[in-house]
Amino acid sequence: MSASLKLKPGPSPRVQRGHPWVFSGEVTRLLPDEHNGREVELRDSRGRFMGMGLYNAKSQIIWRRYSRDKVAFDESFLKAALEAAIARRAPDTARRLVWSEADGLPGLVVDQFGQVLVVQALTAGMDQALPIITTCLQRLLSPADIVYRNDAPSRKLEGLETSVTTLSGNPAEAAWLMLDGIEFFIDLHSGHKTGFYLDQRAQHLRVAELAKGRRVLDGFCHQGGFALHCAKAGAESVLAVDISEECVQAARLNAGKNQLAVDFSVMNMFDWFTANRQENFDLIVLDPPSFARSKKSLDGALRGYKELNLRAMRMLPPGGILATYSCSQNVSPAQFMSVLAEAAGDARRDFVVIEETGQPADHPVLLTMPESHYLKGAILQLR
Amino acid sequence: MSASLKLKPGPSPRVQRGHPWVFSGEVTRLLPDEHNGREVELRDSRGRFMGMGLYNAKSQIIWRRYSRDKVAFDESFLKAALEAAIARRAPDTARRLVWSEADGLPGLVVDQFGQVLVVQALTAGMDQALPIITTCLQRLLSPADIVYRNDAPSRKLEGLETSVTTLSGNPAEAAWLMLDGIEFFIDLHSGHKTGFYLDQRAQHLRVAELAKGRRVLDGFCHQGGFALHCAKAGAESVLAVDISEECVQAARLNAGKNQLAVDFSVMNMFDWFTANRQENFDLIVLDPPSFARSKKSLDGALRGYKELNLRAMRMLPPGGILATYSCSQNVSPAQFMSVLAEAAGDARRDFVVIEETGQPADHPVLLTMPESHYLKGAILQLR
Repeated sequence: MSASLKLKPGPSPRVQRGHPWVFSGEVTRLLPDEHNGREVELRDSRGRFMGMGLYNAKSQIIWRRYSRDKVAFDESFLKAALEAAIARRAPDTARRLVWSEADGLPGLVVDQFGQVLVVQALTAGMDQALPIITTCLQRLLSPADIVYRNDAPSRKLEGLETSVTTLSGNPAEAAWLMLDGIEFFIDLHSGHKTGFYLDQRAQHLRVAELAKGRRVLDGFCHQGGFALHCAKAGAESVLAVDISEECVQAARLNAGKNQLAVDFSVMNMFDWFTANRQENFDLIVLDPPSFARSKKSLDGALRGYKELNLRAMRMLPPGGILATYSCSQNVSPAQFMSVLAEAAGDARRDFVVIEETGQPADHPVLLTMPESHYLKGAILQLR
Repeated sequence: MSASLKLKPGPSPRVQRGHPWVFSGEVTRLLPDEHNGREVELRDSRGRFMGMGLYNAKSQIIWRRYSRDKVAFDESFLKAALEAAIARRAPDTARRLVWSEADGLPGLVVDQFGQVLVVQALTAGMDQALPIITTCLQRLLSPADIVYRNDAPSRKLEGLETSVTTLSGNPAEAAWLMLDGIEFFIDLHSGHKTGFYLDQRAQHLRVAELAKGRRVLDGFCHQGGFALHCAKAGAESVLAVDISEECVQAARLNAGKNQLAVDFSVMNMFDWFTANRQENFDLIVLDPPSFARSKKSLDGALRGYKELNLRAMRMLPPGGILATYSCSQNVSPAQFMSVLAEAAGDARRDFVVIEETGQPADHPVLLTMPESHYLKGAILQLR
C-alpha cells in the first residue's frame, strides 16, 4: 500500500489534462521526507485515483507520473518499461534508448554508443533505482560497459550529488565511432550531453543533401556534425565556427580523420557576423546552444535568436539556404517561427519554408507535455 | 509610371512586417476601378516605396505584393518568376510548379501532371495575365495541353467568373498516371483541387513505411492515396472510408487497377466511429477536408478535430499509430497540436509524437505569411 498525495480542489490542474507532473502547490499536503524517491499514488480532490508517480519533496516538481495504472515501481515494472522503450526504437549504432517522461520513465535517459551505454538519472526516484536499472539493461543489452553521467546540473534541483562513474570502475576512454558514414571521436565520460548530439543526426544528413556545390557556413559547429557531412556531400567550401576552442579542436580532429576539407574559426558567432558582413555563403547552419535555460530568460533568448537569424538572412544571396535550429525548451515552435518571420520582415527578404523540423523518433515528444518538445528548426530558402 | 496606394499612418500594418497583402481599410484612398487587376505601387504614410503589387478593389485584399523592387508586371517579369519557381522544384512526374505568394506570383497556381499543366488564376491580376503566362509556360515546358481550372469559389471574391477550359479546346480526359509506384486515375477537368492531392504524396509514403503487418483504417480516403500505399507496403488489412460515393468509387477503381486488397465503406467518419467502437486497428489515418473555411468557423473546427482524434485515440491498442492531418488554413500548427493534446488528455492515454509534418517543398510556406501554412499533421504512437 503506497502513500498518497491529494490534489487541492479547484480548476483542473495540468495533471488532469494528461501532463505527467504535479507541483508542490497543487496538493493538499506534502509527505514526510522518507518518501523522497519512492512511489506515491495521486488522487484528485474527490479521492479518485489519478496514477502512480515518483515523489520528491526536494524538487518543485514533487510528483512525476510513471503509470496511469496502480503498479509498483519495482524490477518487474522497470524491466517491462525498458523493454518497451527499446522495442520502440529502430536498431542503430548509436541511439537514444530511453527518454524520460516520453518513455514513462521520468528522469531516466539511456543512450547507446556502439557497445557502451550512457545512463543519466535526473530524479531521486531513478537515482535510487539505478542498481535495478543496471541489472535490467545488462540482461536486455549485455553492454561492454555503462557510463553513469550523473553530472547534470539539474540533479541539484532534486537534492542529488553529481558524479561520473562507470559500471566497470574503469574510466570510459574516448574512442572513434562511425556514425552515418563519418568517424567521430566521442568522449562519453566528459563530452557535452552524453557524448554527442544524437538528436541532430537526421538534420546533419538532411542539410548535407542541400550542400552540394554550396559555400557552407556552420555556426556553432560543436563536434562538426553539420560541417563534416556538408563537406562529404560535396560543398564547394565549409567554414565552421564555434566559440569553444575545445569544440573546434575536436571538430578539426574529426575532419582530419575523415580527410574532409573544412576551415575553422574560434569565435563568438555574433561577433563573427559583425566582423564578416561581406562574406558570401549559399548555405548557413545555425544550431546554437540553448539561449533560454529558464522562463525568465525567454525575452532575451528570443531577441538573441532574432538578431542571429537576421544577420544570417542578410548575408545570403537569392536561392541561399538557412538551416536554423533552437534547442531551448522554453521557446515553442510557434515562437521560434514567429521570430524567424520577424527577422525576415526586418531584413526585407522573402524566405520560403522548405521544411520545419522537430525531434527525431528516438527523442519523441510526449503529446501532453509541451516541455518535452525542446528541439525545433526550419530550413528556409531566400527567393 | 504606375498608380500608387498609400498606407494610412499609424501602427505598423502587416505589410511592413513582410506580409504580402494590404486590406482596403489600410490605405488612405482607393483607386478607380480601371486599376483592378493592374500593377500598383505601395507607399507608406511618409511616401517611402514599399513594393509593387496587383490591385483589385473588388476584393477585401486590395493589393498583393509581387515584388519588393520597382519592376513592371510584364512578360519579362513573369518569364523570370516562372523560370525561378520551376528551378526551385526537383524534377518529378507530378508536382506543384507555382504556388501563389510563396513564389511571388499572388493568385497563380500551376501543377504538372505528366505532360499536362493545370493552371489556376485566383486573382484579377493573374486572370488578366493568363495569355502571357500561357506563352511563358509553353516556351518553358512545352506541355501537351493546359487545363485552366478557373472554377475555384474564391474567384468570386475577386469578382471573377468561374469556368474550366483547356488550351487545346478539347476537354481534358481522365487518365492513368503512375505516382510513386501506384497508378491513379486522375481527372484534371473536374477532380478535387487540381486533380489529386499532390501535397500529401510524401505523407502517403511516410505512413506506408509504418503500415507493414498493421491493420489500417484510412478515414477520409478520397482517391485512396494512404490506403493504397499502405496495402502495397504490406498492411495486414486496409479499410478505407469516405462520405463521398464518388471518391470511394474512384479509390476502388485505383485499388483494382493496382491489384491491391482494400475494403471500402461509404460513410460519414464521425458516424463510422460511433457505429464501430469495438473495431481494432493498429494504424489510423485521418486526413479530413478543411473544417475551418473561415475564421468564424474556427471554434467548431477545433471541436471537430478534437472529437475525431479522440475517437481514433480510444480505438488504438498500445503501440498503435495515429497519422492525423489538418488542411484548415485557419487552424495553426500550435492549435492543432494543442487539440491533439486535449484529445489525448480526455482519452487518458500517453501518445508520443513520432513526427510533426508540414507542407512539402513544392508547396512552401512563405515565412512572413502565416496564411500560406495550411497543411500540418502529426504521426503519434500510443505508448
